[in-house]
Amino acid sequence: MTRVDGRVERGEQTRRLILRRAADIASVEGLEGLSIGRLAAELDVSKSGVFAHFGSKEELQLATVRAAAKIFVDTVVTPAFREPVGLPRLRALCEGWLDYSERRTFPGGCFFAAVQPEFSSRPGRVRDSIAEAGEKWTALIREAAVQSGLEDPDQLAFEVVAFLEAANVQAVLHDFPGAYDRARVAVRERLTRVEGAAE
Amino acid sequence: MTRVDGRVERGEQTRRLILRRAADIASVEGLEGLSIGRLAAELDVSKSGVFAHFGSKEELQLATVRAAAKIFVDTVVTPAFREPVGLPRLRALCEGWLDYSERRTFPGGCFFAAVQPEFSSRPGRVRDSIAEAGEKWTALIREAAVQSGLEDPDQLAFEVVAFLEAANVQAVLHDFPGAYDRARVAVRERLTRVEGAAE
Repeated sequence: MTRVDGRVERGEQTRRLILRRAADIASVEGLEGLSIGRLAAELDVSKSGVFAHFGSKEELQLATVRAAAKIFVDTVVTPAFREPVGLPRLRALCEGWLDYSERRTFPGGCFFAAVQPEFSSRPGRVRDSIAEAGEKWTALIREAAVQSGLEDPDQLAFEVVAFLEAANVQAVLHDFPGAYDRARVAVRERLTRVEGAAE
Repeated sequence: MTRVDGRVERGEQTRRLILRRAADIASVEGLEGLSIGRLAAELDVSKSGVFAHFGSKEELQLATVRAAAKIFVDTVVTPAFREPVGLPRLRALCEGWLDYSERRTFPGGCFFAAVQPEFSSRPGRVRDSIAEAGEKWTALIREAAVQSGLEDPDQLAFEVVAFLEAANVQAVLHDFPGAYDRARVAVRERLTRVEGAAE
């Protein structure tokens, strides 16, 4: 049993290693830039070893999106959910997201923003899984707005997510890191305006 | 002279036809999706005819960005500049941009939003020309904010451009056309807030 367990565990470690590297590459070059051969070469694993884990490029892409979503949840969502329900949690979600992009959790900035345009005109499971991640994020912001007792949570989620994504785009594509502070001011003012109105 | 003029004019017409088609394709599939062979086939022009106009793929891409910028200016900027300086012009720029994206002036939504991520990790003249177009647009919004006597025009331009681009992304990539009205509300409230504060 020990030997078998050890093999399973090593297999899991290799899989995690491959997916972490795959997510990093995809955040810069896109999911189409991933190839089993390249990952095998970079990680010094046999091509058949990588292939055994994923079977096809589409499976590799889907597993990469899932792995990136897990990293995102661990980095942004879980810490924010330690904050009290309501505005503190809503603020923590927004600030956590900006930190996640600014600190380059993925080298290309937000993983999902990076791979989304690539699949816009390619319907299929990969596109759906990327879209689902984006929708879940907006739903989390919306839910935190509802729990904060704010009016028109859909409108608020639209505006706040717009600020976050604009900061990511301007920092990553336009080399303008000052965009993060612009987004922090924008989020703060948007939530302050709401608090003021609720008083 | 007449014959020569006619040839020059026909050449110009062909060039415009090629670039219009190129901009439409690139708005959906990216600038790398352009090929001289494909354009020649789609427009029923000889490959050497297309090649004579542009010489290289990079020249074709640069000419396509310039052509798209001209269409953008004709569609959004020129009409807005007929409005009085100040808030009316600022509003017209924002509304014109949302209409330009919503009416699919280019089939893939905003041309610049579509081609920008593709060149993020490819430094060069094409990336620079795309970035320049984006910077000019933000500068126009900023200038209109200054002319409206608004405080912190950089912050205002960041927020307003964030709303516009978020609407485009959500409509085009997430099939959510309702995002345009969200952006209209967001822009209106942002400018109303400012007017209220200025009173």
